[in-house]
Amino acid sequence: MKLIRWGLAGKEKTGVIVNDIKYDTSAFGEDYNETFFENDGLKRLEKFLKEQEGKLRVISDQERLGSPIARPSKIVCIGLNYADHAKETNAPIPPEPVIFMKSTTALTGPFDDIVIPKNSVKTDWEVELAVVVGKKASYVEKESAMDYVAGYVLHNDVSEREFQIERNGTWDKGKGCDTFAPLGPFLATAEEIKDVNNLRLWLSVNGKMMQDGNTSNFIFDVPFVISYVSQFMTLLPGDVISTGTPAGVGLGFNPPVYLKAGDVVELGIEGLGTSRQELKNYVKN
Amino acid sequence: MKLIRWGLAGKEKTGVIVNDIKYDTSAFGEDYNETFFENDGLKRLEKFLKEQEGKLRVISDQERLGSPIARPSKIVCIGLNYADHAKETNAPIPPEPVIFMKSTTALTGPFDDIVIPKNSVKTDWEVELAVVVGKKASYVEKESAMDYVAGYVLHNDVSEREFQIERNGTWDKGKGCDTFAPLGPFLATAEEIKDVNNLRLWLSVNGKMMQDGNTSNFIFDVPFVISYVSQFMTLLPGDVISTGTPAGVGLGFNPPVYLKAGDVVELGIEGLGTSRQELKNYVKN
Repeated sequence: MKLIRWGLAGKEKTGVIVNDIKYDTSAFGEDYNETFFENDGLKRLEKFLKEQEGKLRVISDQERLGSPIARPSKIVCIGLNYADHAKETNAPIPPEPVIFMKSTTALTGPFDDIVIPKNSVKTDWEVELAVVVGKKASYVEKESAMDYVAGYVLHNDVSEREFQIERNGTWDKGKGCDTFAPLGPFLATAEEIKDVNNLRLWLSVNGKMMQDGNTSNFIFDVPFVISYVSQFMTLLPGDVISTGTPAGVGLGFNPPVYLKAGDVVELGIEGLGTSRQELKNYVKN
Repeated sequence: MKLIRWGLAGKEKTGVIVNDIKYDTSAFGEDYNETFFENDGLKRLEKFLKEQEGKLRVISDQERLGSPIARPSKIVCIGLNYADHAKETNAPIPPEPVIFMKSTTALTGPFDDIVIPKNSVKTDWEVELAVVVGKKASYVEKESAMDYVAGYVLHNDVSEREFQIERNGTWDKGKGCDTFAPLGPFLATAEEIKDVNNLRLWLSVNGKMMQDGNTSNFIFDVPFVISYVSQFMTLLPGDVISTGTPAGVGLGFNPPVYLKAGDVVELGIEGLGTSRQELKNYVKN
């Protein structure tokens, strides 16, 4: 299944995509949140879709898409998980995964604007494959880690490099600004993706290809990462693990290239659709 | 007011403490969570208490206490915010606050056991004053920062030093293990604390005083910290900011001293009560 959430920001309704057509599933009566994933929501939604076949309302393509999952308990990110990206940022190949966290208030829709924070001059892009956790995971073995996956989703791990690196640690400082986590367009449930460790992913800025990688170049693959994170904290249903970005971020250029108002970022992952964000300057509400 | 949550873990009910007696406020019908703080819950609870005076059921002292607030959207922590603690860990005085995040799954009650994680040999203690945010805060000025405070609570920012420092960053790796955030006994609303930047705080292990500091030794005081964090991420009602620990943690000893099963940690802050945790080894459920 392909799950979406749509409508006004903060008031999203649920839906699904079937054969490229978006359908309203609000009648199912549950948001795609922790409770949904925890209580076999995906199976129950599948049953609901069979029962409702031909009866669901089509959603207009004019409707805004939100994050395909409701705000999770946490967004855990893996740093430097592609050898080429570690190299471009002058970081050594990590002996074990770097973990950092992104404030969940950063979550935004896949076609929403990215707001450049006040006083920011180094806002950067990072196309990433994000895993959505399907059930509570603590001290999970690598061998069974894939049983804990609800699905996958395209993520732009937007990063402010000065906040992240030059402002007296930790990385979290440059990762959780509002709008820094565009997620979507849709959550593809696990069975939709044949081999998650072999997917092309790319990102362009103003039409120029900046990142063009493949998850086959992971230093630490998806089952390893899930198992690893679960040794340090308990993952809850609906939680997000973002698996790192390949080479081609702005920080890696010489001199570095950062985003400015009016720039357009487009990104995609094989099987997980594409998203597009325009950059805006911060304006006080 | 002094707010508590009590009862079985994960099924806590709400209450208040008045003149050292605990009263059940379940009839108020709301948990102390984001929605409660966002919708003037404290004022409405105060009104409820006046209306119910003399009618509320007393809670037995045998009842377990949980975290006095429900799971927040995030727990943001400040590192190295007391000069003496920075010195004992051989870290320079930070030019601006260190920010890191604690997985909210670490939250536990003030008298619950602390579980030493699997493969941990460096579990350490940190008594801290935690601020609970009362309303949405983004780019808040230092001058108005105190308007965003719902109250204060005692926090043991339990930390695994090997995970935090020796396992290839960031600090988040050693901060978010299950039971690593005992919070409470109660949330004291802002008006209960005359000067939050002048409170004694202390922690003992097996009866031996290990930390004995005062928030007057903050490098960055409470209004500065709130304003600062809000420049990097939006704080939501109910969110927690833990403000750092004074000297006397296990890592600061030569050689370092860490916690083992059977150890008892007791801690307190002037006006915010005391808590007590016993250390247990991890046992698979």
